[in-house]
Amino acid sequence: MLTGEMFVGAARVRGSGKEVRSRDPRTGVELAPGYRYGGAAEVARAAALAEEAFDVYRATDSATRAAFLERIADEISALAGPIVERAVLETGLPEARLTGEASRTTGQLRLFAATLREGSWHGARIDPAQPDRTPLPRADIRQRRVPLGPVAVFGASNFPLAFSVAGGDTASALAAGCPVVVKAHDAHLGTSELVASAVRAAVVACGLPEGVFTQLVGDGPELGTQLVTDPRIQAVGFTGSRRAGLALVAAAASRPQPIPVYAEMSSVNPVVLLPGALAARGAELGTAFVGSLTLGAGQFCTNPGLVLAVEGPGLDEFVSAAAEAVRGDAGGTMLTLGIAGAYASGRDRLAGRPGVTELARGEAGSSVACGGAALLSVDGSRFTADPELQEEVFGATSLVVRCADQAELLAVVRALEGQLTATVHADESDEPLAAALLPVLERKAGRILFNGWPTGVEVGHAMVHGGPFPATSDSRTTSVGSLAIERFLRPVAYQDVPAALLPPVLRDGNPEGVWRRIDGELSRD
Amino acid sequence: MLTGEMFVGAARVRGSGKEVRSRDPRTGVELAPGYRYGGAAEVARAAALAEEAFDVYRATDSATRAAFLERIADEISALAGPIVERAVLETGLPEARLTGEASRTTGQLRLFAATLREGSWHGARIDPAQPDRTPLPRADIRQRRVPLGPVAVFGASNFPLAFSVAGGDTASALAAGCPVVVKAHDAHLGTSELVASAVRAAVVACGLPEGVFTQLVGDGPELGTQLVTDPRIQAVGFTGSRRAGLALVAAAASRPQPIPVYAEMSSVNPVVLLPGALAARGAELGTAFVGSLTLGAGQFCTNPGLVLAVEGPGLDEFVSAAAEAVRGDAGGTMLTLGIAGAYASGRDRLAGRPGVTELARGEAGSSVACGGAALLSVDGSRFTADPELQEEVFGATSLVVRCADQAELLAVVRALEGQLTATVHADESDEPLAAALLPVLERKAGRILFNGWPTGVEVGHAMVHGGPFPATSDSRTTSVGSLAIERFLRPVAYQDVPAALLPPVLRDGNPEGVWRRIDGELSRD
Repeated sequence: MLTGEMFVGAARVRGSGKEVRSRDPRTGVELAPGYRYGGAAEVARAAALAEEAFDVYRATDSATRAAFLERIADEISALAGPIVERAVLETGLPEARLTGEASRTTGQLRLFAATLREGSWHGARIDPAQPDRTPLPRADIRQRRVPLGPVAVFGASNFPLAFSVAGGDTASALAAGCPVVVKAHDAHLGTSELVASAVRAAVVACGLPEGVFTQLVGDGPELGTQLVTDPRIQAVGFTGSRRAGLALVAAAASRPQPIPVYAEMSSVNPVVLLPGALAARGAELGTAFVGSLTLGAGQFCTNPGLVLAVEGPGLDEFVSAAAEAVRGDAGGTMLTLGIAGAYASGRDRLAGRPGVTELARGEAGSSVACGGAALLSVDGSRFTADPELQEEVFGATSLVVRCADQAELLAVVRALEGQLTATVHADESDEPLAAALLPVLERKAGRILFNGWPTGVEVGHAMVHGGPFPATSDSRTTSVGSLAIERFLRPVAYQDVPAALLPPVLRDGNPEGVWRRIDGELSRD
Repeated sequence: MLTGEMFVGAARVRGSGKEVRSRDPRTGVELAPGYRYGGAAEVARAAALAEEAFDVYRATDSATRAAFLERIADEISALAGPIVERAVLETGLPEARLTGEASRTTGQLRLFAATLREGSWHGARIDPAQPDRTPLPRADIRQRRVPLGPVAVFGASNFPLAFSVAGGDTASALAAGCPVVVKAHDAHLGTSELVASAVRAAVVACGLPEGVFTQLVGDGPELGTQLVTDPRIQAVGFTGSRRAGLALVAAAASRPQPIPVYAEMSSVNPVVLLPGALAARGAELGTAFVGSLTLGAGQFCTNPGLVLAVEGPGLDEFVSAAAEAVRGDAGGTMLTLGIAGAYASGRDRLAGRPGVTELARGEAGSSVACGGAALLSVDGSRFTADPELQEEVFGATSLVVRCADQAELLAVVRALEGQLTATVHADESDEPLAAALLPVLERKAGRILFNGWPTGVEVGHAMVHGGPFPATSDSRTTSVGSLAIERFLRPVAYQDVPAALLPPVLRDGNPEGVWRRIDGELSRD
């Protein structure tokens, strides 16, 4: 079923560069087929096809694009068995998790289909002419959003379906009317080929231009830079490491025409345990916390890598229960040997920082790419003095920061970098402190959650999966949820444009029946 | 009335650097008082005060901020006489223009006050909990937008009121809940001091923290870089030259934590004359065009510096009438001697490019900072071959590009850089060509207008004053109109946050009565 080829528009192409194979991270065994890297030629061809497709694709109406997204979802569902089977081999993630992720992926596509049909994404605004206004008449001015152009999407390793070939970035860019050029992640090349074939089938079934979707295989830094600096690419979606994300940001900024980069990069997702909650259920929180920490071998962007608490009743119970749970963890398979190696050295680096104590370490597990959990501890004063303690260790390691008092806790929170999430465990008695904390957390995180755990990102209209730098390169948006479509749009105003030439969504009588802002007031008339 | 001081929060401060004075560009006479440049100390103090004010200011409700903006408008209106009088001296712009600009400035402030009261700016979204969902219950997730933090605003020379101290960037940032640190433009320091005193009076009258507004005087590149790289500054608004704008973009990108820069920089605002319109009223269009070209001595960001037409009936009449109008133009006073010098050399550079013919030149005028209009012409094939012909000459010079046929016209349009505006003159007979042109223009410009002139930017809800690079550094937004508030906001999600801790706009029962998206559906219930 797998060919080892990439998809450059409608063409299946075998690269001419280095041959790479995904590996089963449980055994280290290389998986067939081999894929050869593409390079400048494939990037140029993909970008040319995407550019050629752009005007046709963006002129399609919301219903057409919604049907296309739904067709992609249907094609993925039809292929879900082989996709999940291959993804298990390539990622070591459990079948149940990947089955759930496949549903999430099709759910995302359907969410954007619904968002398109609802129509507010157009951002339609009409300020009608005022021919009798003095001293000067007012022109008729109408506004809508248009897509930016072809978008480069980089598949992430840790969600081989939901943040990869047909993941959130691809779904939102396609919804916005932007052709997509995906760079497949080396860690799951077969999964990527299967998903790409599903997308291609949908392109054909919907009669769309071939350049709407391309999937390339290539060297991350080299092909990534070629793609981001191609003049036809107009925006970038990325989820991955801080180093790789910042390299793409720099490449995009170095272009004669700079373009936006939406890079989701790095977050330690602080969990703040307030005194009342801790006193009431310290041990219970400790056990539940490790459940979140070790989920998926700690390979979630929202993995809780930092716990903040004030010395007092319940903290020792939390730490004991968490340490016990970590020691009892059987160890997970990490996504790749490289990730497992980076995890081990990151964990050991963090454990070796001055003032850091290792409280517990879990079983390494039997995989080749194993990653044993670890629980570390440090004092609040030491934490604020050592910025390296804030660096993300991708995997199931977390650092408990013990603060002397509430003032130190607030100082620690203020010293944090930007985060995807911030979690608070609080009882009613904690509300005054929680109220003081909330404005500080609002400046640090894209999502604030109470009495839960940050792993598990709901896909809906209100979700924000984003946050201040370095959590992302652009805090003004989200990469999960329907708001993500706005990343790939820009507003255009039409002044006194003849009725026959106006886009339908801006015509008198509201033929599309969408919400529009008339002289500032929302209306569907 | 003028003291020569800057405003660092509530304190009037005299700088300790170089002394500068504005000049009357009509006579070259230096104007009292002298202002001394501030530097790192004033930037640090301003940023510290802004940071200190931020949490208090952003916690104010929409009504409080709306009243503040209206109070600023009232204070400016009360001081309009002296402000306009001083601005005439400092800019050489006519009194009637500046009186109109004062109204526009207060109108902008009131527009943002209305936008705040309407409440959609919150971007409120609620996805209610689904405790019974299977396989997993859904948490309660709510979203609103929060302000980014202190904003640096750079006053522009060409709109000493509407794009300066209390102009659109300041109004939209204050509306969003961001304290503002303005760098006053050297060309109108007295006007800036007067307007800043009006803003300060409003800060005091509304009982807001002093750090909400600061106005600094200083060296553009030096103080500008200090300001943009201060870690407390979180966004930048700028209108000015491409060189200066790109320097700020680079400074912002070089920070440990990069920040957004909204720089409105460079646009030649193409005017496309279609055959039907040209044949019907070539001469009339030529005369009207020069009216737009020479308005305010050509010192509008939307000044029409480029005319595109296909050879055919009416084009010679257009050119003759335009040339005659240019020759008859008495010449205007430019804003500064430096701008007049740059204009003259830019005009002469453009006129001297291979293939360019000078059709007409206007009177230079009697001012010291004079800038005579010029009309140049070139062939379409030459234009696409020479990128320098696209460079903005800030002032009343325009280049007529004569295209051999419609295909060449479309090729010329496709070769254009990003623009603030694109204008089309078309009759009904031109609609097929206009329809072919429109999608191309949508990719080039932030505003497309028919049968009018680009100078004159309406301040409303549907306006876009922005556009693809290099018109701006960020095409996803506008610097004029109510949408501009979104530049200074980012979304935050609240998951299972206790009711008492939720921001009022997200509480059950919609206590603020604003539009919110409930499970994706807009509602005011």
